[in-house]
Amino acid sequence: MEDCIFCRIIRGEIPSIKVYEDESVFAFMDINPISTGHTLVIPKAHAGNIWEIASEDLSALHIASKTIAHALKRALDPDGIACLQLNGEAVGQVVMHYHFHLVPRIKGAPPLPVTQWELKSGNMDEIKSVAQRITAALQ
Amino acid sequence: MEDCIFCRIIRGEIPSIKVYEDESVFAFMDINPISTGHTLVIPKAHAGNIWEIASEDLSALHIASKTIAHALKRALDPDGIACLQLNGEAVGQVVMHYHFHLVPRIKGAPPLPVTQWELKSGNMDEIKSVAQRITAALQ
Ligand SMILES: [Zn+2]
Ligand SMILES: [Zn+2]
Repeated sequence: MEDCIFCRIIRGEIPSIKVYEDESVFAFMDINPISTGHTLVIPKAHAGNIWEIASEDLSALHIASKTIAHALKRALDPDGIACLQLNGEAVGQVVMHYHFHLVPRIKGAPPLPVTQWELKSGNMDEIKSVAQRITAALQ
Repeated sequence: MEDCIFCRIIRGEIPSIKVYEDESVFAFMDINPISTGHTLVIPKAHAGNIWEIASEDLSALHIASKTIAHALKRALDPDGIACLQLNGEAVGQVVMHYHFHLVPRIKGAPPLPVTQWELKSGNMDEIKSVAQRITAALQ
């Protein structure tokens, strides 16, 4: 896509700190990192989100992300890695090109903000009725 | 795995509100939902995390998650969906069986906690040196 920042990064029109590339996947460092080692993995073919990305690209991207997660472990020995992928401005997606965040938590570092939420029991009747709507939409 | 809660859910030994199942993937409602429609997608073959899961299972799981994301959109018409997957207790993983969270944000609902972080520019020299270590670990 002409004006997409991530497409321009893939084409080399905007500089990036690349860590991985294959036929269909590109990975580079987030320059506004949540933590040390924060890496973005993107498909080379433009797709805005989980609804648009081709299954082959999704597959290749997640296999590449596993490879990169192994490298992050070897390189940085983190206590853990949070993976995050946002779909829609309302959930904080800023660049409208599918990107999978790998966010390591380095030993001794504070908890990652994206892993903090209050655990509350849901209303079971409500959950069941929502599940029925999802199941119906899957048919 | 004998004692793993999610393996027991897959085997039907612990009840769950299932929304999807295929040969290698199982999906059910999170009973402590971050938001309405919060769904968990898991591989049927036990794997603790991104480092352990087989590539075929990872692939099947993410393609199934795309299908479920389409169903969530049709069923709930959310403003967006955040996807989250945690690896390690230090980043908040509670059940040690790989699980991919699909967390819709329903229209008019407050921002999702997992999508909130402060955007700060990183130190470019530091980021470059970390990238070199990751690249080296990828060889
Ligand atoms: Zn793009
Ligand atoms: Zn298990």
